[in-house]
Amino acid sequence: MKIGFIGLGAMGKAMAARLVAAGHEVTVWNRTRSAVDELVARGAHAAASPLEAAQNEVVHSMLVDDAAVRSVVIAGGVIDGMPHGSIHVNHATISVALAKELAPLHRVRSTEYVAAPVFGRPDAAAAGNLYIAVAGDPAAVDHVRPLLHVLGQRVWSLGDAPERANIVKIAGNFMLASAIESMAEACALTRAYGVDPHEFLDLMTNTTFAAPAFKTYAPLIADRRYSPPGYTLRLGRKDAGLTIEAAVSERVPLPFASVLDENFLDAAAHGDDKLDASALSEVTVRRANLDSR
Amino acid sequence: MKIGFIGLGAMGKAMAARLVAAGHEVTVWNRTRSAVDELVARGAHAAASPLEAAQNEVVHSMLVDDAAVRSVVIAGGVIDGMPHGSIHVNHATISVALAKELAPLHRVRSTEYVAAPVFGRPDAAAAGNLYIAVAGDPAAVDHVRPLLHVLGQRVWSLGDAPERANIVKIAGNFMLASAIESMAEACALTRAYGVDPHEFLDLMTNTTFAAPAFKTYAPLIADRRYSPPGYTLRLGRKDAGLTIEAAVSERVPLPFASVLDENFLDAAAHGDDKLDASALSEVTVRRANLDSR
Amino acid sequence: MKIGFIGLGAMGKAMAARLVAAGHEVTVWNRTRSAVDELVARGAHAAASPLEAAQNEVVHSMLVDDAAVRSVVIAGGVIDGMPHGSIHVNHATISVALAKELAPLHRVRSTEYVAAPVFGRPDAAAAGNLYIAVAGDPAAVDHVRPLLHVLGQRVWSLGDAPERANIVKIAGNFMLASAIESMAEACALTRAYGVDPHEFLDLMTNTTFAAPAFKTYAPLIADRRYSPPGYTLRLGRKDAGLTIEAAVSERVPLPFASVLDENFLDAAAHGDDKLDASALSEVTVRRANLDSR
Amino acid sequence: MKIGFIGLGAMGKAMAARLVAAGHEVTVWNRTRSAVDELVARGAHAAASPLEAAQNEVVHSMLVDDAAVRSVVIAGGVIDGMPHGSIHVNHATISVALAKELAPLHRVRSTEYVAAPVFGRPDAAAAGNLYIAVAGDPAAVDHVRPLLHVLGQRVWSLGDAPERANIVKIAGNFMLASAIESMAEACALTRAYGVDPHEFLDLMTNTTFAAPAFKTYAPLIADRRYSPPGYTLRLGRKDAGLTIEAAVSERVPLPFASVLDENFLDAAAHGDDKLDASALSEVTVRRANLDSR
Repeated sequence: MKIGFIGLGAMGKAMAARLVAAGHEVTVWNRTRSAVDELVARGAHAAASPLEAAQNEVVHSMLVDDAAVRSVVIAGGVIDGMPHGSIHVNHATISVALAKELAPLHRVRSTEYVAAPVFGRPDAAAAGNLYIAVAGDPAAVDHVRPLLHVLGQRVWSLGDAPERANIVKIAGNFMLASAIESMAEACALTRAYGVDPHEFLDLMTNTTFAAPAFKTYAPLIADRRYSPPGYTLRLGRKDAGLTIEAAVSERVPLPFASVLDENFLDAAAHGDDKLDASALSEVTVRRANLDSR
Repeated sequence: MKIGFIGLGAMGKAMAARLVAAGHEVTVWNRTRSAVDELVARGAHAAASPLEAAQNEVVHSMLVDDAAVRSVVIAGGVIDGMPHGSIHVNHATISVALAKELAPLHRVRSTEYVAAPVFGRPDAAAAGNLYIAVAGDPAAVDHVRPLLHVLGQRVWSLGDAPERANIVKIAGNFMLASAIESMAEACALTRAYGVDPHEFLDLMTNTTFAAPAFKTYAPLIADRRYSPPGYTLRLGRKDAGLTIEAAVSERVPLPFASVLDENFLDAAAHGDDKLDASALSEVTVRRANLDSR
Repeated sequence: MKIGFIGLGAMGKAMAARLVAAGHEVTVWNRTRSAVDELVARGAHAAASPLEAAQNEVVHSMLVDDAAVRSVVIAGGVIDGMPHGSIHVNHATISVALAKELAPLHRVRSTEYVAAPVFGRPDAAAAGNLYIAVAGDPAAVDHVRPLLHVLGQRVWSLGDAPERANIVKIAGNFMLASAIESMAEACALTRAYGVDPHEFLDLMTNTTFAAPAFKTYAPLIADRRYSPPGYTLRLGRKDAGLTIEAAVSERVPLPFASVLDENFLDAAAHGDDKLDASALSEVTVRRANLDSR
Repeated sequence: MKIGFIGLGAMGKAMAARLVAAGHEVTVWNRTRSAVDELVARGAHAAASPLEAAQNEVVHSMLVDDAAVRSVVIAGGVIDGMPHGSIHVNHATISVALAKELAPLHRVRSTEYVAAPVFGRPDAAAAGNLYIAVAGDPAAVDHVRPLLHVLGQRVWSLGDAPERANIVKIAGNFMLASAIESMAEACALTRAYGVDPHEFLDLMTNTTFAAPAFKTYAPLIADRRYSPPGYTLRLGRKDAGLTIEAAVSERVPLPFASVLDENFLDAAAHGDDKLDASALSEVTVRRANLDSR
């Protein structure tokens, strides 16, 4: 298939590479050039602009946040450049509000908008092991489904309304941040009683909490090894904001989400935005003053 | 081995039955008689008092809370009835404060105190699939280790100080309640946007959250099926209280634990103490008024 | 002085009336006509559009929120209609972000922007007993100071940057909502032990808490009399959102603000948006299930 | 009247001195001797033991916490030493649980128990300007009322059950801590936008928040002057614990109380127990990292 791919961050690069490797003709665009070159070396074409990358049967985008999507997809010409009948597959974790705005912007141009946010870190993207939540027009979803199976090990269909895939992704990231915070608090408590975090997390993540969310972040928390980041604290903070925004909009009180929001602010105020999101754990360590005991 | 077993609730009954089935000579005591009869039918001896059950080489106890331990073990004669050199294996989830109090009470009587709290619900206990955290005098722990392997699929040693096993158990239950609350909040949010909780939790618990803690409680939350309880809300509430108590005692601020404490109170104020702890989810449903939308 | 006054809600109407009564020539505009007629009956002129009302030496605006300010002041022509050298005195409680946006929009048009948010309910506005926080160009502030003294009993100058007056107003409203919440929680607790809220609040508000914030809301909470509203729950909820937004923007974790945000959502989810903000108290009553005890 | 006074901390000393100055024959006891000497110099008699001080018509006690009351009043002989028909007036801020325990301990000894917790700092005690909440047997309350008017400027009667006065005191201290926290958060937010805390608090405490609770603590927060303490952070922390304990016991979710509990732990973990309770403000300053901006 002829595919455009817009946004080659750590995730987008790995995803685009899989599409190239699967034999598709992929034209890529990125804000900075070096990532484009890497993909070209693997067999992709370089587009000079988002608009050029948009001139394909299917256009994937994997941009960092609402602002980037507004700037590249809306203002930057993607929606205007897409041919009639083409399909935009948006993998980004964006707000529900923007998701609701994007669907009609495509419809009036006779293109299709499919939301397909992904779960997984860059290594899972490279291995095609992502989990993908997808929502949008059923025919469009069916059309791009083979591509989604190149990217992910499993695909969940969530119906016609694209924002349903986005809220699922937002809620999933909320659960991830909650997992980090619950490990952080449990470790701080047990550490205050002399138990080594490695010991505690080894027990938990090999028993009742033997799931990727916990197994991925537990060693980072126990080792206090937050760099290089897989999922930055800045991104985690943005996602916590999306949770609150979605909750406020539909009037759903979520106290865990509030705690996460506060602790992400605390972490950011201490300069940890570029670390891995698991550095959230340091907030609890600092508040309990554990390092000075 | 000649074993005493004190406390035959849903968990204790299943654990004592495994010790009997493994060929040990087990003398049991319980506050109410019917559970004793069940065990006698399987080959156990009935003790007329806790003190009588205490007259064994190893005495297991599985009582519901601090008050029960104080009443049965301290006031009720267990520590006084144990022979010199015998070992008390306490499986109950008790406070750190009580754990610190019990060890010297045994030491001065030349008996040993081993804390061995367990992770798992009654069905896991019946199958010998518990996870067990153990702490206490190393020789005593070695002596009872074969018994622990009858009860659990895996045993974690946490050193000499018994309260270390208790704080690990308390922190583990905190993580469990956090898992319930995070699913509850995520479901409330996605439901407000039209996503069925079954759909959402199916995705999460088959991907990044594919762990027993989530797989056990997710269907109860999605079905809103809180009865019969495996782990009652009242117990969950008690355990949340133990978390706060331990945190206050060592000055560790734990905001997730506070949220859990508040929501358990909310649930109890609405009469849900006898339901499964996953009924915590109804607090969020009620606060967001989801059933009236 | 020739004055324009835009926005005649409960507050704006009372404020404009005072300016008329003080002998100023006031041209008023409002989205709905009836409030305009009332002011005309008191001696004001009616403007057919915001742009017409803007053609004055000083233009006061008292609009309900950011959206209204964007719609009327920016899109609706106020900033374009103001004569060179004229001064816009914005009394609305708006976001810091919008405040920062408005100042340069005036500057490039050679007009002045003064932020002058007010503290007090409609009865205080009618009596000229508001408290006013003012910030902006010192000469402009000096020019309008006599008008501010017509509206308020005391005026606090907070420097050149208009947003400083806005953040002070936002923080003040946060303290007000905190006062309501702290009374609500204290009443729920004492009521659970048989103390009548009137008794408790009578003691507190006549002793250590004898301040308008408490004396105004205590009887509403004790009587559970939330209608007619002085300051609606919807406005309180909007202001809680402004607090969170300002805190996120500068990375300041504010746990009380999070609690308020959650409880305002809970209240709104139960249909209380049109009641007085003190109906926040019902959230705690409901959570503790006090009416069914 | 012949009076015993037990407990001469900063508050007790000032209160006992007023009773002496009013012409009563006061026999005092304190754990350390120096405070006793001060009172003797003013005309009081020294008791060699709590039991000796208890041998009076009315016995006031002002001890620091539950543990002190248990040790001195119950174990230390006060209740055993009191003559038939005498009245114990307990001014301490104690738990509801202990209050419920003390009343029958007096009743069976044919003495009376009156709870009379006080609001105010040592300077108010010295001036007789305390506010006093009183509850207990009406005849006993009437008997000691003249003494209460020597100590306080106003006395609130809260009925027969002594614990009602205690819960009112606990809730009052909760409101006080909430006042401190709300000022702390508001100052942190406004400071992040360049507003000096003095400026902000001057505005608030001279307008809608012009009450002793705010006027007392605002300058301490603005100046960051937490020493010498009037009401120590350790005491504030204890009182926050009493709030949570009372709330848990009657199942009343109180999110503000949870926040206070967490922040008091944070402050204590940073060594601030001996500072004034207003040092709670430093928790927010530290979390927002304001001093490093």
